[in-house]
Amino acid sequence: MNNALSLDTVRLSDDGKEIILLDQTLLPNECKYISIKTAGDIWEAIYMLRVRGAPAIGCTGAYAYFILADQLETEDKQEFAGKCREQMEYINSSRPTAVNLSWALNRMHSVMLGSLESMSLPQVKKRLREEADAIYHEDIEISRSIGAYGFELLEQLGKGVGIMTHCNAGSLATAKYGTALAPMYIALEHGWDPKKDLHVYCDETRPLLQGARLSAFEMQSAGIDTYVQCDNMASYTMKSGKIGIIFVGCDRVAANGDFANKIGTSGVAIIAKHYGIPFYVCAPSSTIDMTLESGDEIRIEQRKPEEVTEMWYEKRMAPEGVGVVNPAFDVTEHELVTGIITEKGIARAPFKEAFEAMGIRPVEKFVDGKV
Amino acid sequence: MNNALSLDTVRLSDDGKEIILLDQTLLPNECKYISIKTAGDIWEAIYMLRVRGAPAIGCTGAYAYFILADQLETEDKQEFAGKCREQMEYINSSRPTAVNLSWALNRMHSVMLGSLESMSLPQVKKRLREEADAIYHEDIEISRSIGAYGFELLEQLGKGVGIMTHCNAGSLATAKYGTALAPMYIALEHGWDPKKDLHVYCDETRPLLQGARLSAFEMQSAGIDTYVQCDNMASYTMKSGKIGIIFVGCDRVAANGDFANKIGTSGVAIIAKHYGIPFYVCAPSSTIDMTLESGDEIRIEQRKPEEVTEMWYEKRMAPEGVGVVNPAFDVTEHELVTGIITEKGIARAPFKEAFEAMGIRPVEKFVDGKV
Repeated sequence: MNNALSLDTVRLSDDGKEIILLDQTLLPNECKYISIKTAGDIWEAIYMLRVRGAPAIGCTGAYAYFILADQLETEDKQEFAGKCREQMEYINSSRPTAVNLSWALNRMHSVMLGSLESMSLPQVKKRLREEADAIYHEDIEISRSIGAYGFELLEQLGKGVGIMTHCNAGSLATAKYGTALAPMYIALEHGWDPKKDLHVYCDETRPLLQGARLSAFEMQSAGIDTYVQCDNMASYTMKSGKIGIIFVGCDRVAANGDFANKIGTSGVAIIAKHYGIPFYVCAPSSTIDMTLESGDEIRIEQRKPEEVTEMWYEKRMAPEGVGVVNPAFDVTEHELVTGIITEKGIARAPFKEAFEAMGIRPVEKFVDGKV
Repeated sequence: MNNALSLDTVRLSDDGKEIILLDQTLLPNECKYISIKTAGDIWEAIYMLRVRGAPAIGCTGAYAYFILADQLETEDKQEFAGKCREQMEYINSSRPTAVNLSWALNRMHSVMLGSLESMSLPQVKKRLREEADAIYHEDIEISRSIGAYGFELLEQLGKGVGIMTHCNAGSLATAKYGTALAPMYIALEHGWDPKKDLHVYCDETRPLLQGARLSAFEMQSAGIDTYVQCDNMASYTMKSGKIGIIFVGCDRVAANGDFANKIGTSGVAIIAKHYGIPFYVCAPSSTIDMTLESGDEIRIEQRKPEEVTEMWYEKRMAPEGVGVVNPAFDVTEHELVTGIITEKGIARAPFKEAFEAMGIRPVEKFVDGKV
C-alpha cells in the first residue's frame, strides 16, 4: 500500500519547466500525475481541485508564477513586470477564498519587483525559482511544526485517542505532512502504534468528498485505524464518546480568530461545543489575515450546482430545475474554537492578542483578485 | 409535472390481494409502482427503503399483516394465530427502529386475537382488512391535523418564511400529506403562493439522499420555491438568516421528548439552537413511546458500509478496507426541541406532562422485534 507521505503533492519538473501535480480528483482509485505549464492549465487545475488545500495551492501558485515568468520572451523589464502582474491576477482568480494563493503570488511578485532594477531578466528568473523553492521547503517545515504542537495535545489525551477531521488538510493539501493530519504523522514518528493508539474519523465532506477520498486514503495508507462517516453522522459519533479532539484545516483566518474552511466546518464546531469536545484549527501563519477584523469580511465562493445534484449513478440525484445551495466554504465563529495551531505555537482566545504576541502582523497583500 | 399529492405512496390492490408501493429508491428519475404479496418481498421492500417513513411503513405493515393472514389456508384457529404471530415478527424485523411498524402490526394482531373466538376465520380476515383500511385513513387525518398545527406556526412567522427540513417526512412517507412537509401542503390549501410565500431548504440527507430525491421532488412538484443543500451546508444556510423554522419528522419519541429520526437530525437541532432557530418535530402520537423514559433506550439500527462508500460514479468513493460509520438514525435530546407537533396539538417542555395531558399513554406493544 502506498504511504501518502511518499507521494509528491506538487513539485517542479526536473528541467524546471513544468509543474507536476498528483491529480487528486482521481483519488482514491487512481494515482495519476499531470504535467502542466500553461496559465490556462494551471488555472483549471486549481479551480477543478486537481490540487487543493491552501498550502499546496500556495506552492502551486509560487511555481506557477515562476514558470510563467520564465516563459516570457521579452527583454523589456517594464513589459516583463506588467505581464507578471497579469499572470498573477489571472492565476489568483482561480480560488479567491484561499489566502495562501494570493499570499504566495504576492511574495513572488514582491521578489520580482525587488530584484528587477539590480538584476538582468535571466537573473530575476533564477531568483524567482529560488523563492518558489523556498516557499516549498518552508511549507514542509511549517507543517512539521504544526504537527509537533498538535502531537503535544494528543499526548495529553493519551494513546488510544479518537480524532475527528473534516475535508482534507493532510499531506495531500500541503507539500508534506499536512496541517490537520500532521499531528498523526508526527505521532507515528514518535512510535505510536497506528492501529491501537490512533483512531481517525473522517467526515466524507460533500459535495466533493475530500474526506472520504483523500483524508481516509492518507490515514489508511499510513496504517492508521481509519473510519469514514457521512457529514451528518458527526453528531452521532461525538455523542458516542469516541472522539477526544477535532483537528481541521483552514483557508483563511481573520484577526479575531473567525476562520473560513471547507463547507461544513462551522457545523462540526457548533456540535463539538455542544458535546464539550476540544476543537482545534491548524493554520499556517500565512493563512492568518490580520487585515480582516472578523469572518464577516471573508468572501465565500459559490460553486456550480451540478456538484450537488449530479455525479451520482450517472443520474441526477435531485429533481431537474430545483434550486441548489453550494458554498465552497463557511465561516466558523472564534467563540467555537479551542485553539489555533500555527507553526509558531498554539493561539488561544483572545486570538488577536495571541497572534500579535506570535509576531503575526498585517501584511500588504492582494485579496479577492485585487492587488 | 406530477404533484406528489396525486401519487399513492402505499395502497392495497383492487382485488385486496397485493400491496402496491411507489418504489421510492427510483425517485426522482422514475415513478414506478411495484405489486408485492409474499412476506419476503414485503420484508425486502421495507428494508431496502422502497417504502419508507414511519407512517407509510405503518400502513404497509398493516396491509402486510392482512394479506399474509388472508393467504393462510388453515382452518385451525390456533395454527392461524401462531402463523400470524410468526409473520408479524418477521415483518417487524425489517426496520426495528420504526415504532410505527410494530405499532401497526401489534394493533392488527390485537384485532385478530380479539375476534378469533367470536368469529369464523373468513370473518376474522374481513375484520383485519377493515382494520388495515382504518389505519390507512386515520393516517391521512393525522397528517392533515399535524399540517394544520404546523401551518399555524408558519402563519405566525408570516408569508415568505424559509423552512428547513431533513430527510423526507412528506407525503411519500405517509398515506398522504406527510408530517414535516404537511404544513406546507396546508399552506397551499390556504392559498399561499408557492413561489413567493414559502421557501423550502432540503438537506440532501446522506447516505441515501431522501431529502434531495424525495423532499425536494415533493416540494418542487407542488410548485414551491425549493432548494437542495448538502447536509453540511445547514449551518451556512441557518447563519444566512434565511431560515425561520425547522420541521423534521421522527421515527420514535421517548416520554421525555428525546426522539430518534434519520441520521443527522441531532446535528441540525444542535446547530438550530446555536442560531436560535425554532426546531419542531412532527410526530403522529403513534410514534410516541411512553414506555421509553429517554432516548438512551432507543436502539439504533446500523446499516451496511457500502451505502456510504459506494454508489458513486460506479467507483468506490473511499479507499478499500476503510472503517465505516453508518447508523440509520440518531437521537436528538429533548432540550434542543422547541415543540413536538402531534395530531392532538403541539407539545412543549416538559414533554412527558404535555403528552399525558394529550391523553397519550404507555401502550402494550412489541419493541425491537419482541412482542
